[in-house]
Amino acid sequence: MESEVRSYCRGWPVVFDRARGSHLYDEDGHAYLDFFAGAGALNYGHNNPVLKRALLDYIERDGITHGLDMSTTAKRAFLESFQNNVLRPRDLPYKVMFPGPTGTNAVEAALKLARKVKGREAVVSFTNAFHGMSLGALAVTGNAFKRAGAGIPLVHGTPMPFDGYLDGQVPDFLWFERLLEDRGSGLNRPAAVIVETVQGEGGINVARMEWLRRLSELCRTHDMLLIVDDIQMGCGRTGPFFSFEEAGIVPDIVTLSKSIGGYGLPMSLTLFRPELDVWEPGEHNGTFRGNNPAFVTATAALETYWADGQMEKQTLARGEQVEQALSAICEEGAGHGARYRGRGLVWGLEFADRARASAVCARAFELGLLVETSGPVGEVVKLLPALTISPDELDEGLRILARAVRETA
Amino acid sequence: MESEVRSYCRGWPVVFDRARGSHLYDEDGHAYLDFFAGAGALNYGHNNPVLKRALLDYIERDGITHGLDMSTTAKRAFLESFQNNVLRPRDLPYKVMFPGPTGTNAVEAALKLARKVKGREAVVSFTNAFHGMSLGALAVTGNAFKRAGAGIPLVHGTPMPFDGYLDGQVPDFLWFERLLEDRGSGLNRPAAVIVETVQGEGGINVARMEWLRRLSELCRTHDMLLIVDDIQMGCGRTGPFFSFEEAGIVPDIVTLSKSIGGYGLPMSLTLFRPELDVWEPGEHNGTFRGNNPAFVTATAALETYWADGQMEKQTLARGEQVEQALSAICEEGAGHGARYRGRGLVWGLEFADRARASAVCARAFELGLLVETSGPVGEVVKLLPALTISPDELDEGLRILARAVRETA
Amino acid sequence: MESEVRSYCRGWPVVFDRARGSHLYDEDGHAYLDFFAGAGALNYGHNNPVLKRALLDYIERDGITHGLDMSTTAKRAFLESFQNNVLRPRDLPYKVMFPGPTGTNAVEAALKLARKVKGREAVVSFTNAFHGMSLGALAVTGNAFKRAGAGIPLVHGTPMPFDGYLDGQVPDFLWFERLLEDRGSGLNRPAAVIVETVQGEGGINVARMEWLRRLSELCRTHDMLLIVDDIQMGCGRTGPFFSFEEAGIVPDIVTLSKSIGGYGLPMSLTLFRPELDVWEPGEHNGTFRGNNPAFVTATAALETYWADGQMEKQTLARGEQVEQALSAICEEGAGHGARYRGRGLVWGLEFADRARASAVCARAFELGLLVETSGPVGEVVKLLPALTISPDELDEGLRILARAVRETA
Amino acid sequence: MESEVRSYCRGWPVVFDRARGSHLYDEDGHAYLDFFAGAGALNYGHNNPVLKRALLDYIERDGITHGLDMSTTAKRAFLESFQNNVLRPRDLPYKVMFPGPTGTNAVEAALKLARKVKGREAVVSFTNAFHGMSLGALAVTGNAFKRAGAGIPLVHGTPMPFDGYLDGQVPDFLWFERLLEDRGSGLNRPAAVIVETVQGEGGINVARMEWLRRLSELCRTHDMLLIVDDIQMGCGRTGPFFSFEEAGIVPDIVTLSKSIGGYGLPMSLTLFRPELDVWEPGEHNGTFRGNNPAFVTATAALETYWADGQMEKQTLARGEQVEQALSAICEEGAGHGARYRGRGLVWGLEFADRARASAVCARAFELGLLVETSGPVGEVVKLLPALTISPDELDEGLRILARAVRETA
Repeated sequence: MESEVRSYCRGWPVVFDRARGSHLYDEDGHAYLDFFAGAGALNYGHNNPVLKRALLDYIERDGITHGLDMSTTAKRAFLESFQNNVLRPRDLPYKVMFPGPTGTNAVEAALKLARKVKGREAVVSFTNAFHGMSLGALAVTGNAFKRAGAGIPLVHGTPMPFDGYLDGQVPDFLWFERLLEDRGSGLNRPAAVIVETVQGEGGINVARMEWLRRLSELCRTHDMLLIVDDIQMGCGRTGPFFSFEEAGIVPDIVTLSKSIGGYGLPMSLTLFRPELDVWEPGEHNGTFRGNNPAFVTATAALETYWADGQMEKQTLARGEQVEQALSAICEEGAGHGARYRGRGLVWGLEFADRARASAVCARAFELGLLVETSGPVGEVVKLLPALTISPDELDEGLRILARAVRETA
Repeated sequence: MESEVRSYCRGWPVVFDRARGSHLYDEDGHAYLDFFAGAGALNYGHNNPVLKRALLDYIERDGITHGLDMSTTAKRAFLESFQNNVLRPRDLPYKVMFPGPTGTNAVEAALKLARKVKGREAVVSFTNAFHGMSLGALAVTGNAFKRAGAGIPLVHGTPMPFDGYLDGQVPDFLWFERLLEDRGSGLNRPAAVIVETVQGEGGINVARMEWLRRLSELCRTHDMLLIVDDIQMGCGRTGPFFSFEEAGIVPDIVTLSKSIGGYGLPMSLTLFRPELDVWEPGEHNGTFRGNNPAFVTATAALETYWADGQMEKQTLARGEQVEQALSAICEEGAGHGARYRGRGLVWGLEFADRARASAVCARAFELGLLVETSGPVGEVVKLLPALTISPDELDEGLRILARAVRETA
Repeated sequence: MESEVRSYCRGWPVVFDRARGSHLYDEDGHAYLDFFAGAGALNYGHNNPVLKRALLDYIERDGITHGLDMSTTAKRAFLESFQNNVLRPRDLPYKVMFPGPTGTNAVEAALKLARKVKGREAVVSFTNAFHGMSLGALAVTGNAFKRAGAGIPLVHGTPMPFDGYLDGQVPDFLWFERLLEDRGSGLNRPAAVIVETVQGEGGINVARMEWLRRLSELCRTHDMLLIVDDIQMGCGRTGPFFSFEEAGIVPDIVTLSKSIGGYGLPMSLTLFRPELDVWEPGEHNGTFRGNNPAFVTATAALETYWADGQMEKQTLARGEQVEQALSAICEEGAGHGARYRGRGLVWGLEFADRARASAVCARAFELGLLVETSGPVGEVVKLLPALTISPDELDEGLRILARAVRETA
Repeated sequence: MESEVRSYCRGWPVVFDRARGSHLYDEDGHAYLDFFAGAGALNYGHNNPVLKRALLDYIERDGITHGLDMSTTAKRAFLESFQNNVLRPRDLPYKVMFPGPTGTNAVEAALKLARKVKGREAVVSFTNAFHGMSLGALAVTGNAFKRAGAGIPLVHGTPMPFDGYLDGQVPDFLWFERLLEDRGSGLNRPAAVIVETVQGEGGINVARMEWLRRLSELCRTHDMLLIVDDIQMGCGRTGPFFSFEEAGIVPDIVTLSKSIGGYGLPMSLTLFRPELDVWEPGEHNGTFRGNNPAFVTATAALETYWADGQMEKQTLARGEQVEQALSAICEEGAGHGARYRGRGLVWGLEFADRARASAVCARAFELGLLVETSGPVGEVVKLLPALTISPDELDEGLRILARAVRETA
């Protein structure tokens, strides 16, 4: 009865029923260890008990559920907590926009704003970028298969090489800078550049900090806005709350979604420098942009995990644990030809033989571990455990992964 | 701290805290009667107790919260209930797609699918249509102010006159049909036509059933898909579950959102004839397309309200109550120059003097009633009470409205 | 060896060698009377002796042939003559641009200028318009077959109904005006409107003078530039030099080509009000925009035919001669179902049975008369004799036409 | 009275009257040596006596002047001569299309055909390309100033680095090939690649033969059509008739214009492999595509100059003469910082100080030599003498140039 468009359920042909922390349970009661975390929407695990308590209390007491952009106590509490725990400690001056509850809404709003501010249509994105599936976001997304779904030619976007794309054969930004400086290059002058610091869907491609810094300078020099799409890599996925913190840059616009709601509830934010706030009232809107239960769990998550630097430290520590395991896999005979890369708690294991990545995921599933592929042709096994995963759970999952690699060799 | 883009909160400068049924309460405990219903997302009222119970139980027992497009017991239950209570009794053959949890996602998916199926880019929409704010949906939306927010020229859409647009001076579809039949007309051949049966944002413009039937025939004759955007008018708003039922037509594609989740939680559907299901797995996706708590409340709403024909009858009865009150207002001296129109429980009261509609809403707010304007210049007061409103509450609201009209004369 | 794209030569399968006045001669010496006049490029007949003398003299004395946009004595003479014989007597304030030697170049320049001046992309054109085959001009051309050749979706143009398109069932401009006035109509605000006063390729559709005046007012009221494409209908084809003179309007931009060079040599002009001259030097250019031999024949044509009002009077008289003949054809039994229309020396004879128009042209060719079809499906026989045709030649051609109609009945 | 858009006449503020061979004469009788050759349209010099004789004879005897796409003896003679003297000796299988008489018409036709054949919209062009000023051609042109004149965002084109653009820091086609091979790159799959072998307007950038060969292979491998725009560099400008001959490649589509008519009369051709001839009759047309006087001079030029290999040898010899002179200029103190490059009889002298190039041209004009700048900011003095220039004339011009360089140091 459901459309052929569904995908994940094909690789995991069971019916899930319950979940808690890093485990899902199917309707027959089998447990699965989760290295997928809702594609990054469940950084705090499934049905995190602290957040759950806050959510139940809110629903019990008939807190506002659906609020459009009305002022509510839940929204105010979230905004205060976001200010206190996230923006102020990092000296980030952003204004907050609720553009609708999904990542693609946040990206659409970011692109609209950038174009409105600069009065230019063109936007530069990067090879293997993924920014969403509505037409605006899709036009800056790299994947040819997803682009083909648009049914119209996708225009106004130009891809540039992401960090490492040309295997170090070319100085960073040589091509981009040349195009910008040359009045005869044929590049429509961009309003903005949109970038992920680590490309999740694109195959766990990790930009170096100096590359991000150079990009930020390039944007400044050439009067382009820098949009960091932190939908998958924000909310602590790479360690710090924002993935760009380590680079010491302050993007002009930032998109957040996925784990910002904390509990897996739809929510997203578009953040921007206050001087960019040229929106007229109602110029962008959306029915579900005031998803108040998500504000409640979002606030609980910020208060619980981001009042101090603990979460960041823990994520980096867990990341080292992953790295060691991946290193071991790649050194083993069975992992021959595999390469790994990552940051914080997002890691990718790339196989030269492309069918292998799927085989590893399929075998892992049989062994009780949920992992997915990414990359342009699905050649990368993507590790995206909850940030709250315990060292033992992590270890268990990594051992299953190693076994799946061995058994598919 | 929040962007200037916010709008509703400007007209209602209080902080809301709780809600139940047709009432909201601000943080100081003041009650407001709601004739707005979350812009149509709360057809069953705020925090409907039956749905609330189901939701609490699901959360309590750690049901899957975030599920992407994984199979879950909650999704299965929803699909079965939707089939049993909605599709089968109406002999509708649709397949169901979860395109992401917002209306604009559903519209984007509908447009992508139509273009893919027909291999053509052009889509016809209607004057004063509203379909969403992401670039695909915005291109078929009429409002010039919202269109201007795009920052790029919006193309591939052509507006045609909605029913009544030319005040009956022109035979229905004369222009549209002539363009389609004439190989020299300059109209790019459309893949699809997208229409609302009642335009909510556009000013409560009600299409006649025969107009809808003629449109459906025109689509068939000229090999265009008919998309009914039932996001605001579906889920019983006009009486029957789908707003197009009364016309006896079967659109090729239908979008649902807003009240489909029942509780105001983000959810949307794109329905289409099975032969149109040409999607490849994963060709359209989105992080929050498996918002399982919304599946739970959606299922509870279908089971509670749509297992029989009661809801439809009740809505039509309540609609008559509204119509009588609006008729009285328009006949009174104070309502001079006002006109009303509507269907089921969606009604509009249009003022010749455009500032008047805002004044009426402002005064109603002071008197404890939430109503909003719509229409291209906000000239229409839009009445959108919950379908579950009691006759007494409805009466109270209508009396406040009449008073606000009088007091702003 | 030549591409399949050729068309006219298919209907006239002979090889032409020489021509003079209203006659062409094939390589076997057969004569053909010409009611086609190079699709309007030969208003003064083939190889007009006065122009020929001027051209030969110029070539003999090694006058500049190819001049880009350099100042030349030939260009100066043309500009002076155009000023003295055309612009000044009609009180037209235009500046002159040489946009390249073809009509489509002139239209491209007109559209670019209008968009640059207004800072808007959209342009309104009319059903069955023909403005040229390069991408800018093609986007405002109606014919679906020609549009399909673009290979990309043609956007930024919206068709409106030409005069008479809806058979008088709809007040003039009702739809267009409503779209412009309604902020919710979905029409992108146009930079300009482009119109032919008589649509040649579109089927000899003649706009009434009051319709043109209303259009001109509409443009003024709604801040749109009015572009009259007078490429086929200018240079006296309808009687006066410009086809819009009779309407008493002054378009903002006018395109001229075809007969402006006089002798059938490639030349075109874009004329515009001086305050619109916002071009930067070289912002539009083209190799052959200084076709000096064409300036020479153009000047000779202006001096010979436009120093007084003789040509206009003669054209109108010849037009009456055509009208009488067409009226007789339509009244005869053989012409049953045919309708005629026209202005000056451009006339169309439309047949209800579409194949009939082709048959008439084919038979006319056998009888020694060159006429072509036009209209979206070629249903109209188009009469476009040279303005210099003698009454006897005209009579002879009209008799052949009548016979061809009879013999194809 | 003429628009501000004019450009060349600003640098050469005299009124030209006559011309012959490599000399122009202003109305006061001053002579100017021409190193500009109508921007490449006068390869055989001004008013070449052989061509002039053929043209006068044709006009005298009332040969067809304006022929649309009718068969004429003049067109047939041209096609036969083109076949015999150009295509057959080079084993080129092309069909010939007359797309309208200007270069931009030829490019528009080439792009339309490529898109129609491949069913794809995207076209790749190169940095600093120049292909024309109508919207289709402008979208694949690099110059930002000219692009800005479009008034709409120019889309469907993507620039790639021309040979040498990145100063040899990057392997040829590394970026382009990577984009094509990677399904996640975000590049819309191109229908075609359009290239000039030597970029004239772009600053006399000369592609190496191996670069052209690699490009040709890349097109074959990735199912893209290769369009060589030989409008300025064809007709012997680089030595052989087609500029790509030396590379040993056979493009799928070739555009010719400028000197193809021989005498500076508007004419252009689009050539393509016969299997690409998917045009329907009349799918692309244009009033002046049958400029028969140009066919006559074109035929005379082919018969006179291309019946044997003399012209090619002579051009290469003259080119060496230019190269020696430029080498001497660059070695001199006065030419300090200048660099030269070229092929056949097209050469560029680039100055580090951009104002210098203009100064050199201005001084040269005072000294009686016409030369122009090119390049994105006009930093290159472009030498484009007629191919028929005598060694003495060439020497004279080069000496004036050297003097102008010295005197502007």
